[in-house]
Amino acid sequence: MKTGRFITIEGGEGAGKTTLIDGLAKRISKLGRSVLITREPGGIPIAEDIRGVILDAGNTNMDARTEALLYAAARRQHLVEKVIPALNKGEIVICDRFIDSSLAYQGYARGIGMDAIWEINRFAVEETMPDLTLWMDVRPETGLARINKASSREINRLDLEGLVFHQKVQDGYRILQQRYPERIIRIDAEQPSELVLEQVFMELDQRFKGFFATDVKL
Amino acid sequence: MKTGRFITIEGGEGAGKTTLIDGLAKRISKLGRSVLITREPGGIPIAEDIRGVILDAGNTNMDARTEALLYAAARRQHLVEKVIPALNKGEIVICDRFIDSSLAYQGYARGIGMDAIWEINRFAVEETMPDLTLWMDVRPETGLARINKASSREINRLDLEGLVFHQKVQDGYRILQQRYPERIIRIDAEQPSELVLEQVFMELDQRFKGFFATDVKL
Ligand SMILES: Nc1ncnc2c1ncn2[C@@H]1O[C@H](COP(=O)(O)OP(=O)(O)OP(=O)(O)O)[C@@H](O)[C@H]1O
Ligand SMILES: Nc1ncnc2c1ncn2[C@@H]1O[C@H](COP(=O)(O)OP(=O)(O)OP(=O)(O)O)[C@@H](O)[C@H]1O
Ligand SMILES: [Mg+2]
Ligand SMILES: [Mg+2]
Repeated sequence: MKTGRFITIEGGEGAGKTTLIDGLAKRISKLGRSVLITREPGGIPIAEDIRGVILDAGNTNMDARTEALLYAAARRQHLVEKVIPALNKGEIVICDRFIDSSLAYQGYARGIGMDAIWEINRFAVEETMPDLTLWMDVRPETGLARINKASSREINRLDLEGLVFHQKVQDGYRILQQRYPERIIRIDAEQPSELVLEQVFMELDQRFKGFFATDVKL
Repeated sequence: MKTGRFITIEGGEGAGKTTLIDGLAKRISKLGRSVLITREPGGIPIAEDIRGVILDAGNTNMDARTEALLYAAARRQHLVEKVIPALNKGEIVICDRFIDSSLAYQGYARGIGMDAIWEINRFAVEETMPDLTLWMDVRPETGLARINKASSREINRLDLEGLVFHQKVQDGYRILQQRYPERIIRIDAEQPSELVLEQVFMELDQRFKGFFATDVKL
């Protein structure tokens, strides 16, 4: 029986997902609670092997639907071996990207269709949908600029072409948030990272009372 | 545009699928027509890699749904790289096992559910369903006895346990034949292989006039 809480963090590149998760982890552990932080394939050998097939194929001729099925397969195995056992033990699991990434990237931005991607992912996750998803909403320009700054690169032509794609990804997330307003919360990720963390923590505290006891001195 | 014909051969172990295909191939080539005979993963590197992941995992802990997604992924790539291009050139493609194997084995006999397996396979094959499927119907006892004879083994306890499973596979195929009577023809595969071939060839000749010109002297 699942007694834990499953939280996923979503959003485009450079939105600050990993930064947020790091901050959350510190804060939650100060409360004396353990939290499992993971991302696919998450060190699960079968899932790693599957991702290996995707990466090996590199620029060759892997069909977009083949790739989508492989992502779903890796998701399933990671879920079964790592996420579900932790949830059954009552743990908080925070996953860096999950089903909505497939829906936004492959379903919407790459054009396979959200409904089609949903079908195969529903098969993969069954009833283990996230309890809460934080959508880190950032303009693609902001996200790319952050990444370029981190790697001290200039924005180049490839980034500019990529902007159109990343704009679609953002549109995809927006559609998802409108479709599942109960599950997906939009976070203004243009804000400084401290404010993002503050907002997210308050949100978690409200939703999952008892899990995040804010009366504890931080 | 698909102008060829896509024929799949289905049935339990030892039903005589490969024997039938060999016979068909000889006969069709005598008619001066070329035919592409294939089976998944069919020498397609990406599909072979995917099947490799399934086999590598061997007896370890691969989840049944992960496996089903991987089979669907290998199916997709084999279809896109090999089957569809041949069909577009007007060729006859005969495939040794296809979507119905997943439905009968994983969907029905292993208990994932035919509808669920259908969802992910519909994603994989899209509109490229077989024009005709020959279900080689044989009692599991007959099929296993043929295989044991070929390998000169005695029926052992494992085979007997396997009988229950193979009975379910046969039940699964029967359900599919009743669900898709236009597409799936039942062949009495208990008959001697020459009679099976004769019956199948007549069926093809009737269904695909122009492709199988029986006025040619065999
Ligand atoms: N709110 C913020 N304001 C400014 N910079 C930020 C903010 N959040 C993160 N950054 C910086 O932006 C860069 C990318 O952040 P991070 O790696 O957390 O993004 P991400 O969403 O995990 O990206 P990816 O999708 O590539 O994994 C890092 O250099 C990080 O320090
Ligand atoms: N109609 C038949 N009557 C008797 N024996 C047969 C018949 N058809 C095939 N056999 C023999 O049965 C054995 C299995 O046949 P075959 O390999 O064609 O089955 P198959 O359906 O392809 O099995 P598998 O699912 O294992 O690939 C072979 O030794 C073959 O010679
Ligand atoms: Mg990150
Ligand atoms: Mg065979």
